Amino acid sequence: MRIGIDAMGGDGAPAMCVAGAVLSRDLLADGDRIVLVGDESAIHEHLPAGAEWEDIIEVYHASEVISMGESPIEALRGKPDSSMAVLAELHKRGKVDAMISAGNTGACVAAAQMRLRRLDAIYRPGITILTPTYRGPVAISDVGANVNCRPQHLQQYAIMSSEYLAGMCGIENPRVGLLSIGEEDAKGNSLVKNTRELIKDDSRINFIGNIEGRDLFSGVCDVMICEGFVGNVVLKLIEGMSIGVIQGMLKEMAAAMPDQAANIARSGKSVMGKYDFNEYGGAPLLGVAGICIICHGASNERGIMNAVRGAKEFSSHQINQRIVKLVSEG
Amino acid sequence: MRIGIDAMGGDGAPAMCVAGAVLSRDLLADGDRIVLVGDESAIHEHLPAGAEWEDIIEVYHASEVISMGESPIEALRGKPDSSMAVLAELHKRGKVDAMISAGNTGACVAAAQMRLRRLDAIYRPGITILTPTYRGPVAISDVGANVNCRPQHLQQYAIMSSEYLAGMCGIENPRVGLLSIGEEDAKGNSLVKNTRELIKDDSRINFIGNIEGRDLFSGVCDVMICEGFVGNVVLKLIEGMSIGVIQGMLKEMAAAMPDQAANIARSGKSVMGKYDFNEYGGAPLLGVAGICIICHGASNERGIMNAVRGAKEFSSHQINQRIVKLVSEG
Repeated sequence: MRIGIDAMGGDGAPAMCVAGAVLSRDLLADGDRIVLVGDESAIHEHLPAGAEWEDIIEVYHASEVISMGESPIEALRGKPDSSMAVLAELHKRGKVDAMISAGNTGACVAAAQMRLRRLDAIYRPGITILTPTYRGPVAISDVGANVNCRPQHLQQYAIMSSEYLAGMCGIENPRVGLLSIGEEDAKGNSLVKNTRELIKDDSRINFIGNIEGRDLFSGVCDVMICEGFVGNVVLKLIEGMSIGVIQGMLKEMAAAMPDQAANIARSGKSVMGKYDFNEYGGAPLLGVAGICIICHGASNERGIMNAVRGAKEFSSHQINQRIVKLVSEG
Repeated sequence: MRIGIDAMGGDGAPAMCVAGAVLSRDLLADGDRIVLVGDESAIHEHLPAGAEWEDIIEVYHASEVISMGESPIEALRGKPDSSMAVLAELHKRGKVDAMISAGNTGACVAAAQMRLRRLDAIYRPGITILTPTYRGPVAISDVGANVNCRPQHLQQYAIMSSEYLAGMCGIENPRVGLLSIGEEDAKGNSLVKNTRELIKDDSRINFIGNIEGRDLFSGVCDVMICEGFVGNVVLKLIEGMSIGVIQGMLKEMAAAMPDQAANIARSGKSVMGKYDFNEYGGAPLLGVAGICIICHGASNERGIMNAVRGAKEFSSHQINQRIVKLVSEG
């Protein structure tokens, strides 16, 4: 398997992308290769001296970089030789079997959508992210690929995420909740009401009904579907809040038990680790005919390495084939 | 001032509503009265023996109850003698100067909107809630009154919430952020983009630009505006998550420091207290010509008492007059 990484994407690029590639050695099977796409000299600067990486890493030059703040479509049009555009093109031409980027999410989604076909019968790709909770991971979809969702899109996000969770985590028949503002049928906006009607009798979806924001942490569902604007807000809120609450707690604890500083710091670190996105290996853009893994912009080398692991598992568990099969049963 | 309480609203009604009213004695000035609206005999059952409440509490009978799961409009139409409908009617007729309910939020919003006029020039009332964060309270508006928001509605939520925060908390010139999925102009959905255009040069709003979910906890803004569906999701997510994260942390700490169980429990309780909605006295429905305070369904007597305090302060700080004045400057 050949796994392409956008070496110029993310806050720590290219250093952390290169380091993540090097760190991935143990995940690779014979013949597997990582292709770092981006500015050749910048990448080489960060590769270890000697050449002990040459058996697993190739470098593919791209002269331009799309930054985090750029408008996705304009950036892709204006920078055809950007690492993002070149990586997607390599995937399209079969030169890599997966693409990973910690860069501009919108540009990554747009590049994958423009270059790769959609899977059969899929209307709109969506990003599915595994969120750590105290009662186990919950998949949230969509978290930002699609801010103009229709009920049919949410229906497919439910199906795709269910297959992703079943295939990757072994959770059979995942319970799907529809994010709303009350459990009753009558609550929510028109998108939620129409989606509920569409999926409530869909035998491909283990639909448990409407859920509320708090239910993400109550263990009632394995998959939460929502439109991309709401999903992205939720995702970033969780990120900001977990850190905020934990910091407040640590401060309080340290004041109450001044002689336990070391224990408190250690426990805090352990809890923070459970909310560390770097352990979760990025989020797939489901629905494209390929493997596109989107990483957090602040990913470190472990985040990139875990995305490589994710791409490998996505392939070996045949997630796309599973999705196409289930969708076609509708 | 006469403050009406829906005695039948909320998970612990009528007991906790009655207890909250009794607990409010110290907040009341000479001549202030609390009017408990609901089933007369059920209310009397929970009033203290003797009659030491008679100087501050009146009971107004209403024979019907709207439950939490009912469809708001249908419930109000079908139950004209419900405590909620009667309370709103009393407010309309000037028999009370404020209404407080921990019952069905949708029904409370609908009752207030149907019975009370809107403030001059206000298009749609919205619920503003003060959310505790590690860096101080942030007002979020709307959190569920309006799931069909237009840019003009969000503009007014910004103005009304700013006046509420300035008047109630003394925060001058509150910084307003527009909840989106990226700080850049180009990101977000059409509602966000159009709202941004509308408010960016509005001199009545101290607009700091688009914010993301995580910024709610980063101390960059005092007011966060969003449409009601997103706001309600955010609100409930915060509630579920703060408890989930804190519980996880306490468990971790207890395992690491078995001899510190008492200290850990005490610190945990202190942190939980900062996220206890009962301390925040309910959320006003801003934009109606009256005072309507909506409490959490799981409010206890302290939650109700703090809502009484909120109603008193809303009145004494002349929040509605401030709002009308600022809106008219547009």
